Amino acid sequence: MKNYYFDNSATSSPKPEAVYKAVEIGLREYNANPGRAGHRKAVEAGRKIYEVREKIAKFFNVKNSLNIAFTANATESLNFAIKGGIPQNSHVITTNFEHNSVLRPLFYMQDEKNIKLTFVNTYDEIEKNITSETKAVVINHISNVNGTIQNIEEIGKICKKHNLLFILDASQSAGYSYIDMEKHNISILCLTGHKSLFGIQGIGAICLRDNVKIEPILEGGTGSFSKLSRQPKEMPELLEAGTINTPGVISLGAGIDFINEMGLDKIREHENRLTKRFIDGLKDIEKIKIYKSLTEEQGPVVSLNIDGVDSGDLAQILDEEFGIFVRPGFHCAPLAHKVIGTYETGTVRFSFGYFNTDEEIEFALSTLENIALQI
Amino acid sequence: MKNYYFDNSATSSPKPEAVYKAVEIGLREYNANPGRAGHRKAVEAGRKIYEVREKIAKFFNVKNSLNIAFTANATESLNFAIKGGIPQNSHVITTNFEHNSVLRPLFYMQDEKNIKLTFVNTYDEIEKNITSETKAVVINHISNVNGTIQNIEEIGKICKKHNLLFILDASQSAGYSYIDMEKHNISILCLTGHKSLFGIQGIGAICLRDNVKIEPILEGGTGSFSKLSRQPKEMPELLEAGTINTPGVISLGAGIDFINEMGLDKIREHENRLTKRFIDGLKDIEKIKIYKSLTEEQGPVVSLNIDGVDSGDLAQILDEEFGIFVRPGFHCAPLAHKVIGTYETGTVRFSFGYFNTDEEIEFALSTLENIALQI
Repeated sequence: MKNYYFDNSATSSPKPEAVYKAVEIGLREYNANPGRAGHRKAVEAGRKIYEVREKIAKFFNVKNSLNIAFTANATESLNFAIKGGIPQNSHVITTNFEHNSVLRPLFYMQDEKNIKLTFVNTYDEIEKNITSETKAVVINHISNVNGTIQNIEEIGKICKKHNLLFILDASQSAGYSYIDMEKHNISILCLTGHKSLFGIQGIGAICLRDNVKIEPILEGGTGSFSKLSRQPKEMPELLEAGTINTPGVISLGAGIDFINEMGLDKIREHENRLTKRFIDGLKDIEKIKIYKSLTEEQGPVVSLNIDGVDSGDLAQILDEEFGIFVRPGFHCAPLAHKVIGTYETGTVRFSFGYFNTDEEIEFALSTLENIALQI
Repeated sequence: MKNYYFDNSATSSPKPEAVYKAVEIGLREYNANPGRAGHRKAVEAGRKIYEVREKIAKFFNVKNSLNIAFTANATESLNFAIKGGIPQNSHVITTNFEHNSVLRPLFYMQDEKNIKLTFVNTYDEIEKNITSETKAVVINHISNVNGTIQNIEEIGKICKKHNLLFILDASQSAGYSYIDMEKHNISILCLTGHKSLFGIQGIGAICLRDNVKIEPILEGGTGSFSKLSRQPKEMPELLEAGTINTPGVISLGAGIDFINEMGLDKIREHENRLTKRFIDGLKDIEKIKIYKSLTEEQGPVVSLNIDGVDSGDLAQILDEEFGIFVRPGFHCAPLAHKVIGTYETGTVRFSFGYFNTDEEIEFALSTLENIALQI
């Protein structure tokens, strides 16, 4: 049975061939501990790490590539940003579309550091909720539930005007949206490597704007400043405790190269066309309830339910009978389901990637139509 | 020029061929997000993760494999153990041979959580330093500076007798030493995958004994308990926030398979023979100062200096003129250098692995002899 992979919001699959190759070459040829020794193999690994830092800096317009630290995933980046960067006793504005990688650290801060939280649905509600206590805005750029895109240009302007820390969770948008640390006035950009950036699992990054200060929550060896009893204050060492995931970093570099070759705009247009085709096709199917973006822009993520069918059951039928891979349930974003009215049922999520095709969308639509007809 | 890799304490290199292959197959065939969806690809990835948890459990005799969480590296595991597991206001006994991955979290606890620290050199000094306030013992099993092996059987007995938390940093010993969570009464075992366990960089693990409780310091999506506003209390979710490094986990499983096939004892005996040969050979060379284990047992790590030669310069000569890859400096373990008298100079470290040969040792010895003669 042919497989139809529509779970790109969980991890992009497949990866570009060049990513597999880069990882293999990295493992065989650059297999040393970067920054931990002066010998050639370690220096070569260190140079690879440096090159990828530069690639990320260029891709997201991070002024100083040393302000980029590699992490294990977006969750780690977000914990660093939220727990290390938001002052205690402050007020923070966030959205109901946040993933648990943002919500749980924020609720920790609420419970332990006396921060107050305001939840909005869309970016146009941010400014009116700012008070004299507001210090930060934490925003999921694209919802992993329904593809709601928050306008980061507008949010950046608001944060600049009110001098707020702007923490952006770009888990779903990096590699799809145009993101510019400077133009969009982003204070802390949190990335994962294994989604639209086409890297492998286990690699993420956090990018700081100049003058943004955060406290580390992990400490350890940095291969430099060895005699310091506490974590060095300098980036990237500040946030890079322990051995870096060199193969992961290399995969991320190869992923960014792939995007640059294909063209970010072309990738986005392809995914947008597929998404539009999918949504347009769903409209004609009775019994299907679609959950789309709440803003003017729609990311390549769409949730749906079929009346009377449990989301888990539907996903299972799609998988077992049709080879269609989607994700049912809550997608680690519980509050989003309160907003869209699916807190009890969850949704079946289709998330598209660059390697999906029009034919695959047509197959998904005809399959859903057949299932809906038989209910 | 042939390369001689003696930097296995930083990362083992090369990896077994089976590890490269497992990673490639993992990336191409199991590339989905484990535990994040019910579809076949995600279930297959989840099954792989489960298998590796079972392998680790068997290898280290962890009673319940769900008490094993995957981390990014030993540093992350040690931060979780120390910051999440040691009660504030308590007294902790540790050694001067700790790596900064232990020292910096411990100094954080001293600065922020009012713990008191006692440093010993060897395990036989632990018991006499126990007070009524002592709650934990944190021990580097094998020193990454001079191969000092602390006797974990004895430490386990002491910790059991005095009801202390026993946190073991097995970064240098896992895959070389015989380690048994139950027999050695280890409360928290902290592992890295990319050293003697032959995995790739970016993967580590933390293993808890039954009834050991720790608080998470990272929180995020767990693919389960999605509606909980804080991190689930259940292992492994408690310590696994965000997407797991699936290729890293798979590499670790392949590494453990390789060790089981070769035999842990055989691997250790091979490395011990090389280490003994190296130390015996060095004894005959004038001007070389050797830094060996301070206990009865010697791990496969030896530091040295040549009188009058800077450690960085010596490492550079070895690299550039002879293709010998070693590590100079402090090895992220500053206090060890105070003990062995190299706090100003650092050392040149040779660390051996399973793929090193007798011929390589002979070449290293004759090269060192030639350099020493020419000084």
